[in-house]
Amino acid sequence: MKVKDMGEFTLINAISDDVIFDPTTVIEGIGDDCAIYKSTEDYEQLISIDTMVEGIHFTFNTMSPYDIGVRLSTANISDIAAMGGIPRQIVISIAIPPTMDSAIIKSIYDGIKYQCKQYTINLIGGDTVSTSGPLVITLTIVGEVPKGKAVLRRRAQVGDCIGVTGYMGSSAAGLDAIYHTYQDTNVIIQSHRQPQPQVALGTYLRHIGATAMNDISDGLASELHEIADTSNITMLIEEELIPIHRETMLISNRLGNNPLDYALFGGEDFQLVFTIPSESLPAVHNQKDITIIGQIISKGDGTVLMKGKDQSIRVIEKKGYNHFSHD
Amino acid sequence: MKVKDMGEFTLINAISDDVIFDPTTVIEGIGDDCAIYKSTEDYEQLISIDTMVEGIHFTFNTMSPYDIGVRLSTANISDIAAMGGIPRQIVISIAIPPTMDSAIIKSIYDGIKYQCKQYTINLIGGDTVSTSGPLVITLTIVGEVPKGKAVLRRRAQVGDCIGVTGYMGSSAAGLDAIYHTYQDTNVIIQSHRQPQPQVALGTYLRHIGATAMNDISDGLASELHEIADTSNITMLIEEELIPIHRETMLISNRLGNNPLDYALFGGEDFQLVFTIPSESLPAVHNQKDITIIGQIISKGDGTVLMKGKDQSIRVIEKKGYNHFSHD
Repeated sequence: MKVKDMGEFTLINAISDDVIFDPTTVIEGIGDDCAIYKSTEDYEQLISIDTMVEGIHFTFNTMSPYDIGVRLSTANISDIAAMGGIPRQIVISIAIPPTMDSAIIKSIYDGIKYQCKQYTINLIGGDTVSTSGPLVITLTIVGEVPKGKAVLRRRAQVGDCIGVTGYMGSSAAGLDAIYHTYQDTNVIIQSHRQPQPQVALGTYLRHIGATAMNDISDGLASELHEIADTSNITMLIEEELIPIHRETMLISNRLGNNPLDYALFGGEDFQLVFTIPSESLPAVHNQKDITIIGQIISKGDGTVLMKGKDQSIRVIEKKGYNHFSHD
Repeated sequence: MKVKDMGEFTLINAISDDVIFDPTTVIEGIGDDCAIYKSTEDYEQLISIDTMVEGIHFTFNTMSPYDIGVRLSTANISDIAAMGGIPRQIVISIAIPPTMDSAIIKSIYDGIKYQCKQYTINLIGGDTVSTSGPLVITLTIVGEVPKGKAVLRRRAQVGDCIGVTGYMGSSAAGLDAIYHTYQDTNVIIQSHRQPQPQVALGTYLRHIGATAMNDISDGLASELHEIADTSNITMLIEEELIPIHRETMLISNRLGNNPLDYALFGGEDFQLVFTIPSESLPAVHNQKDITIIGQIISKGDGTVLMKGKDQSIRVIEKKGYNHFSHD
């Protein structure tokens, strides 16, 4: 059924059930002017907002509506994870083309709710409007972190080690695998379609004293630059240490691409990159999903250096994706 | 300068100054993965999200970019006011057509910041993305209310009086005044272009024991129905008591419209409609901006009745605006 034939209230009813996964924090969910939620004493509140536009941030050609819901939730939850926080509540706004099938909207919400359930987050409010343009979905997430303990990106210190969680570049390589309809690279295809936020590792890294942390939404190079810029340091990473999934290597071989391009410049992995004092290293060495890839070598102006496999040292550029460069 | 020629970071820098109006509640504002804010002990947190789409919710033909910023802020702040709450933090997401002039975006933000300053709210985060469609702006607001004191819409009681703040229908009549380029109806034109949220009155009404409250975004009839439906009651209002501004009467005379249509079915006034036990009446009689317009007469299924000037009693329909009926 088309959204315009369904009406706003029927649609809202169709998507507002099964949305509370931690009732202890919710006083009023969807339905009034605001939702009401409890915050925890001795915690500070975190808030982040993310928008995805059809045709810019996702396309129904390579992702199902359900996957789109999963990925938008992940992008949002990941911002909380990158502060070492615990995600708590989500509100959603969606601008819908009236001729879109309401089943698509339902599936997007199902993907969002699946992620909310996995990470014990409540969906407590929203707004549904119509648009003459493409589908636009905006999620706002509220989380919390013990007072004074949030891991910012601007506190990396000289001497700290640089680490990452998981594999770099899987999502970008997975997208190429989808375009080429490869059947034997399911791990990286899943990394593109349903990437997962690293909430547990984010909390763990806060516990063991991470000094700076970012989630990898725009690519490892860009995120390293953000930490280096805001912390006023120079960092050196080692090419050989960057964890790249074997399926990314496989795709790179087949397509004649450099796997390092996926790893440094491929975005939307939603893994974490962090810095940590060297005395905390024993606490990361026993974690299979954490890899140390370099060190903060001096005070500086935000330079990111990489030692290649041939021992040469290169400057890594940001190559940050400019969200306004396409039209 | 077009947004696509300016780049995301330059744009973000241009709009992220002068955004903190209550530094005591902000630990980290714009710039990291999340903003961090303090919540007040013994308070519950309120959250609401609102989206406005160019061509659907506003047009540059009748409103300046600055006014659009003011009105979207008002819509958002008003949701907090309608719970009797205190607005605290705002985050903004904006999906921008790349060929739009960046000065327009700057003006919209100026309007938002003006409202933030007036109501001592901080702008602590956001997301800027591009879109192939019309401009889409989403605001999420966080506020707070003393524990257990939020004024919901579903708690109107038999015997309660029904009241409103300000004048009904000014915004809709103001829009007609703009279309007809009348010069002598500036109050209602201002009500359309820069409506104000009723934060102080919302808090006052909570203090004196309001049992139910809504802000008037979709028209008085629609909001009365929401209270009547969710509270399971029947209400009776009196036509003669509904406060209508003299400029709305003037416009109605000129255009041959019924002023009651503006008052009942014109939306976006962002005044408050509430119910209150009769013993609290003395506390509203001394408030010039509050008018009692009726009473909850019995348990019921959400019927809204109106006694006309001729003493006849009519059923008032919702005539709620269906956001998906146009395409």
